[in-house]
Amino acid sequence: MADAAGPRDTSAGAPAFPVPTMPAPPVGVVGLGQLGGSLAAALAAGGREVSGWDVDPAARDAAAARGVRITRELTGVVVLAVPLPAMATALDGLSVDPDATVTDLGSVKVPVLEALTGAFGSRVVGGHPMCGTERSGHAATDPHLFTGARWALCLEPGTELPRWLRVAEVALAVGAEVVPVTAAEHDDAVAAISHVPHLLAAALAAAADDAGPLALALAAGSFRDGTRVMGSDPAFVTAMVEGNAGPTAAALARVRAQLDRPWPDLVTAGSAVARRPTGRRTVRVPLDRAALLALGRAGGAVHRRLAAFVEGWVPGPG
Amino acid sequence: MADAAGPRDTSAGAPAFPVPTMPAPPVGVVGLGQLGGSLAAALAAGGREVSGWDVDPAARDAAAARGVRITRELTGVVVLAVPLPAMATALDGLSVDPDATVTDLGSVKVPVLEALTGAFGSRVVGGHPMCGTERSGHAATDPHLFTGARWALCLEPGTELPRWLRVAEVALAVGAEVVPVTAAEHDDAVAAISHVPHLLAAALAAAADDAGPLALALAAGSFRDGTRVMGSDPAFVTAMVEGNAGPTAAALARVRAQLDRPWPDLVTAGSAVARRPTGRRTVRVPLDRAALLALGRAGGAVHRRLAAFVEGWVPGPG
Repeated sequence: MADAAGPRDTSAGAPAFPVPTMPAPPVGVVGLGQLGGSLAAALAAGGREVSGWDVDPAARDAAAARGVRITRELTGVVVLAVPLPAMATALDGLSVDPDATVTDLGSVKVPVLEALTGAFGSRVVGGHPMCGTERSGHAATDPHLFTGARWALCLEPGTELPRWLRVAEVALAVGAEVVPVTAAEHDDAVAAISHVPHLLAAALAAAADDAGPLALALAAGSFRDGTRVMGSDPAFVTAMVEGNAGPTAAALARVRAQLDRPWPDLVTAGSAVARRPTGRRTVRVPLDRAALLALGRAGGAVHRRLAAFVEGWVPGPG
Repeated sequence: MADAAGPRDTSAGAPAFPVPTMPAPPVGVVGLGQLGGSLAAALAAGGREVSGWDVDPAARDAAAARGVRITRELTGVVVLAVPLPAMATALDGLSVDPDATVTDLGSVKVPVLEALTGAFGSRVVGGHPMCGTERSGHAATDPHLFTGARWALCLEPGTELPRWLRVAEVALAVGAEVVPVTAAEHDDAVAAISHVPHLLAAALAAAADDAGPLALALAAGSFRDGTRVMGSDPAFVTAMVEGNAGPTAAALARVRAQLDRPWPDLVTAGSAVARRPTGRRTVRVPLDRAALLALGRAGGAVHRRLAAFVEGWVPGPG
């Protein structure tokens, strides 16, 4: 964090002050299930102009009742909030304004960006809010779903920074904190903290089942915690891990290597991670790709857009 | 479950009726931390005569305030509620009535029973309530801790059935359901559903840490669920897995074998376990070792003591 291009400590600096920015563009959400429906509802509740579409009439009706204008014509920041297998066809039959910024909420980023960049070029900004639950569908909509959540937002070498900021402002508007990442960094990170946990939970449940009904009858807290994610739709989980196969295999190999350690060393190491202090130090980051990515790599996030920089935080004494 | 010695379906039988049993013996609890303090508090709140001891004066004072008589002289059902490493010396300086039934709450059973049987012979009944949390100590006492929990209770070839029933009645009195097991069956089962999950959580956390601060910053629900047990004291976790090393290594090998499967198969198998229906069918079980153990092996538990049998349930349509 001492890198001159990185975030600067503002604890002794002059106070930041917000300045007016361009009028917020409208948001168009394609897919009004748990994530898309929650995003549209949160934005509409905040007075933002939100339109949207879903192939399911019931999802459209539920969104309309929350103030979302239902239309096939999307402008401003267009958010693809559909399952990974549907990403390629989500816009079939819809019209996207030629100047729209296109983002998505998919749980893997390299393959999605490859597909979307082919269609939309440098207007694409990949994103991934880390806040889904094991529930899904429009009935699971919650306008507070994003409050306090991390929202990874991809800064590729070709990403247009003004478009990145436009999407970041949407995320900040619904209470999320924005983590600047490259798509490859994102996919490695989520393999470690999301995709491998789903595989471990499945292996734990299946192996306990091998042990017989007695074992499952005795199952208590640690087992239920470790297998809770198995409530997710298995087709969704499979698409997620297979869509990020390389990083997931690498992260799983790291877990297996940890399991080879002597148990006291392993338990001590795991406990140290879980007990690490979680303080935050406020920083300002210039509107610069390298500086923003350095913030993300340091474990930090952006929580506010200001005039010529963003304000965020990195782990450390507060 | 069609075994003549096993539980009988009572759905079409005559109604069971409770009959008076012998007066409930007093309970003496050694170790008044989370588990022992909660047990003593729950029994005292129910009007049972409860005495107890702890090496920590603060734990003794907290228990006394909940109606526990503090004494070094223990009678009736004597419960060793101390950490595994303290089990061998927990009764140093205390006096145990020569007719007392001795039980424990330790998380492994074969080694504990070997040690206690040497000192107390056939008066020992090993037990393990499946309800600790990551908290510990007398400040974590909760009289409702056992409500609805499974309480494994060992029926070894040499266990005296009347003493087993006496301990079972203590567990039922605080709202637990009693799972009849052998010590070896118990240790295999808890390896699969408790000890291995602790190791997986440690490996997951340590491997995510290898992946860097960005990964931990993005960590969301599935990771937090999978590592929640890392809040436990690492010394306690290490004692637990090393005290059950053989079954834990075998259960870990079963998890590794599951992780070798193709991911779609693995996810489907894990999801099927998590989504299995959880109905219950009421059964009566004669007071017979083989019949009680058959109930436990079927994934069932005892929820009521009656005259010449116990009532319990097994998984199945209700």
